[in-house]
Amino acid sequence: MGATNAAKTNYQYQTETEALLMRLRRMEGQVRGVQKMIEEGRYCVDIVTQLQAISAAADKVAQQVLEGHIRGCVTDAIKEQRGDEAITELMTVLSKAMRG
Amino acid sequence: MGATNAAKTNYQYQTETEALLMRLRRMEGQVRGVQKMIEEGRYCVDIVTQLQAISAAADKVAQQVLEGHIRGCVTDAIKEQRGDEAITELMTVLSKAMRG
Amino acid sequence: MGATNAAKTNYQYQTETEALLMRLRRMEGQVRGVQKMIEEGRYCVDIVTQLQAISAAADKVAQQVLEGHIRGCVTDAIKEQRGDEAITELMTVLSKAMRG
Amino acid sequence: MGATNAAKTNYQYQTETEALLMRLRRMEGQVRGVQKMIEEGRYCVDIVTQLQAISAAADKVAQQVLEGHIRGCVTDAIKEQRGDEAITELMTVLSKAMRG
Repeated sequence: MGATNAAKTNYQYQTETEALLMRLRRMEGQVRGVQKMIEEGRYCVDIVTQLQAISAAADKVAQQVLEGHIRGCVTDAIKEQRGDEAITELMTVLSKAMRG
Repeated sequence: MGATNAAKTNYQYQTETEALLMRLRRMEGQVRGVQKMIEEGRYCVDIVTQLQAISAAADKVAQQVLEGHIRGCVTDAIKEQRGDEAITELMTVLSKAMRG
Repeated sequence: MGATNAAKTNYQYQTETEALLMRLRRMEGQVRGVQKMIEEGRYCVDIVTQLQAISAAADKVAQQVLEGHIRGCVTDAIKEQRGDEAITELMTVLSKAMRG
Repeated sequence: MGATNAAKTNYQYQTETEALLMRLRRMEGQVRGVQKMIEEGRYCVDIVTQLQAISAAADKVAQQVLEGHIRGCVTDAIKEQRGDEAITELMTVLSKAMRG
């Protein structure tokens, strides 16, 4: 993607960089927490529940970044008549997310 | 859950503790990688793709632990006539995982 | 699967056959409703929302049948020392449902 | 939604009305097929597998309509400076689809 993406902006999610980093640091802590649970031989259902929380957290951050992408990059692309390509790329991401 | 769970075993996933810990350490690296991507202002679609990979990794580990749980704790519970309660608990986990 | 499954029971979900059939008839009505929405040129977001409801309904019925399967077939298999095979089959279904 | 949506177009998915209706008729047939399976007392795992196929089919059609919506309604809205509202509506649909 390199050359093409180089031109693309990322300013949308950058307005909320700190909030995103905070969520990701919390997620990192959750992953380390599960490691500890496994080392301590904790009950498997509690481990699964914790892993489900991590998965949901990753999905939520992904959605947040995606919203910024749509409001920023995709919107710009549409205004500059590059919408078709941008939407095709967006649909690839969405189809992975929507397990369709 | 405390008292009840105390009696429950965790030996199933413990036979594969090292493999699970390795996956979780890789996941921790992925989460830190996304932090770096955000700090460097990388392209939003690449960040979303990486977050989707983390979510899928968490789901996969959850499935692995769940399989151990079913082969271990749930199987034992059924053999000892405590199956009803164990399956009710299992269904709660599954319904969260299956978004039904 | 034929020969093996022939021996397997289905009594679990049969105790609730009528409730399941009712849900499926409602789902059939929903699918026909979407056809009508498309023929009438209704707003796309409303169509997507309706399709999401159908998908969620199918997942919910699947979960209900799965619970019966675990309480019935899988439980029987475990008691009769055929648990390993039954759980392997169960995990195949779960992994599809959990998109892991 | 009435008044607002009345102004919104649906021409995007209408170019493929027949293809969509064909998929939905197939889905209707699948739902009826599951009813028959239940009436005949078929093996539960086969029923769950069939329900998962219906759910995936509904997701796939939803994605197709959504793509038309983004290429049509959302693109128009952005060009006519109504992008913010259209994207907020889109994100509501996506968040349901992405279980975030």
